Amino acid sequence: MSIITLLTDFGTEDEYVGLMKGVILSINPSVTIVDITHHIGRQDVVQAAFSIQTACGYFPKGTVHLIVVDPGVGTGRNLLALETGKQYFIAPDNGVLTLLLNAEDITALVAITNPELFLTPVSSTFHGRDIIAPVGAHISRGFELGQLGAEISIGDVVRLDDIDAIRLENGNLSGKIVTIDHFGNLISNISSKKLAEFCQTNPAKKIRIQIGSRVIIGLSTTYASVPSKAPLALIGSRGYLEIAVNKGNAGLFFNAQKGFPLQVSV
Amino acid sequence: MSIITLLTDFGTEDEYVGLMKGVILSINPSVTIVDITHHIGRQDVVQAAFSIQTACGYFPKGTVHLIVVDPGVGTGRNLLALETGKQYFIAPDNGVLTLLLNAEDITALVAITNPELFLTPVSSTFHGRDIIAPVGAHISRGFELGQLGAEISIGDVVRLDDIDAIRLENGNLSGKIVTIDHFGNLISNISSKKLAEFCQTNPAKKIRIQIGSRVIIGLSTTYASVPSKAPLALIGSRGYLEIAVNKGNAGLFFNAQKGFPLQVSV
Amino acid sequence: MSIITLLTDFGTEDEYVGLMKGVILSINPSVTIVDITHHIGRQDVVQAAFSIQTACGYFPKGTVHLIVVDPGVGTGRNLLALETGKQYFIAPDNGVLTLLLNAEDITALVAITNPELFLTPVSSTFHGRDIIAPVGAHISRGFELGQLGAEISIGDVVRLDDIDAIRLENGNLSGKIVTIDHFGNLISNISSKKLAEFCQTNPAKKIRIQIGSRVIIGLSTTYASVPSKAPLALIGSRGYLEIAVNKGNAGLFFNAQKGFPLQVSV
Repeated sequence: MSIITLLTDFGTEDEYVGLMKGVILSINPSVTIVDITHHIGRQDVVQAAFSIQTACGYFPKGTVHLIVVDPGVGTGRNLLALETGKQYFIAPDNGVLTLLLNAEDITALVAITNPELFLTPVSSTFHGRDIIAPVGAHISRGFELGQLGAEISIGDVVRLDDIDAIRLENGNLSGKIVTIDHFGNLISNISSKKLAEFCQTNPAKKIRIQIGSRVIIGLSTTYASVPSKAPLALIGSRGYLEIAVNKGNAGLFFNAQKGFPLQVSV
Repeated sequence: MSIITLLTDFGTEDEYVGLMKGVILSINPSVTIVDITHHIGRQDVVQAAFSIQTACGYFPKGTVHLIVVDPGVGTGRNLLALETGKQYFIAPDNGVLTLLLNAEDITALVAITNPELFLTPVSSTFHGRDIIAPVGAHISRGFELGQLGAEISIGDVVRLDDIDAIRLENGNLSGKIVTIDHFGNLISNISSKKLAEFCQTNPAKKIRIQIGSRVIIGLSTTYASVPSKAPLALIGSRGYLEIAVNKGNAGLFFNAQKGFPLQVSV
Repeated sequence: MSIITLLTDFGTEDEYVGLMKGVILSINPSVTIVDITHHIGRQDVVQAAFSIQTACGYFPKGTVHLIVVDPGVGTGRNLLALETGKQYFIAPDNGVLTLLLNAEDITALVAITNPELFLTPVSSTFHGRDIIAPVGAHISRGFELGQLGAEISIGDVVRLDDIDAIRLENGNLSGKIVTIDHFGNLISNISSKKLAEFCQTNPAKKIRIQIGSRVIIGLSTTYASVPSKAPLALIGSRGYLEIAVNKGNAGLFFNAQKGFPLQVSV
């Protein structure tokens, strides 16, 4: 009983996701398919990179993750198959795997070129259906990554350069909002680990989080720990610094967009 | 082959629903997961209460329903596990189970406190993933409710007081709109049973349904039984009084919101 | 391991889709259910007709497709069960099957009248739940179409008259936009086959596609083959002429709605 997950920017208005599932089930009728989400912002590889990093840890070994956020479809970009942490990831080589490229855990990394598994003809605009879905389905049945194409070096894979929060020269942490969720919570790229390092020298209660023209003092544990409609900062369920408004919508409160900067200081 | 359903206010933009499915499948790989909906209004426990009441009757015995509409997550509110009608319901103790609390059918009702099944660490903002999903998955594999925590009395469970339509002193039925569906139909909390009682003394053809400044006379059977763009009232597929507009959108027609009052008289 | 697909205009805000799945799984617990989409425009049978035509080819033999775009629910319209290409289609008789009615491939076509499989009572507003779902589930278990009701002649089935692109007297191809997808791509009813016939006498590079007040010259192969923000025409992944804007949204660019006309000339 194997699992294939789908993470795309296709939305759900069209039959695109359904077609991928039809292709997968035609090859592996007993697989369980899980939608992670199809509402990644159009072509937003940064958002997708964080989403797959968060999601994969909750799936069992052997899961095959298909990531189709693919602005370069039909151009010369590679398609990658990555095995790491005993899971499989099929995705365009556009940076979407950046947060999974921890060299120690990688057991295979290939550029998919063997057309044997592709649908024919391969359309130039929907590799999700014609390449990624059938390749993923075959992997879920035990097909070896080595037969998909030549190994490539981790150093040759596209990475998103500015995806991580950074420590400024003055010691402050500088990050940005990478996702605004359904509740309007602003999810940043400042990880709990980065924040813990910062807090080794600075008490958590006193850290200042600057976002827009406002400053939030200290970290909360729950949304309800501040008055109704007041903003707060906490480590969200994803493990990253998150800005929320108790019983409100931080996206509207701060009039924030994805990419909005924030800074942690004392 | 067991079934777990999900009913949440998470939306589908984020990976939240996908994470719950990953957790569930990690514990019970052969379970079938069904989304009832993830578009309950944010924190709208009334809407969720009607939705789960409607939905559960169409699922087989043994189904485990996970309801995550949870404004109090991370505060002291209980999480409940209810067995009734040979189905299981896991939900926060916030009234969302109100319409299922018919004492005669209840075979078990416990407050979930045993951390043995929880993910660790339990986040303070996502009990759906860290508690409800793993508990539900274990129940779908036969885990006994009695081992989840202490039994609690039905009288100690939070109920939504004003959820039912009421009979006024003048004999009229007073209700409200609890859901506006995808087609703009206004679904009320006036059940067909309540309406039938009312109609024992008042002929159905002559009942007057007052909504906003308008009055609809009599009940229709189909949308097409009135002229195009005209409003009508009928017993909807959910078994509750519903206001619709033939080939139109009653929500727009009446400029109605959830909570909008309506009254049935003669 | 059989498959049932769902194609509806229900949206996903409500529990309607979930109820259909509950009904199906109550009858056939081991079936795999796939959502093609639930976001067909409300009552847009033309869009649904193209969507099911596109989708079915990617599913294996034996798949049962349930199509619930049903403006006439509760009126006298028939419900049909069609077997063609070794797949099954259950749908209202309102034209939604038009593109599948190729007489040579049809092995069975019946009007569903036998109430034996229906839920009771059958609501007058939700035949998807009360008739189509249980009938589909039983077919997925091997129930014979002949037992559902009397055979009907293909000539008696409702067809959408103006669904196909047409060749004008001056030789031009005249079509319309039938779907605007999540990316804003405008998908027409001009098939690659019709276009290939047209191009037998007219070189593809020189064809002129008139849409609104603009003309696009020639067909592209990928979105990226024109400058950023420029419009282009290509044969989309669905096999129909599609108008797109590279790194943009053609729906906004052309201010186009479904039904928008386009014409191919030289």
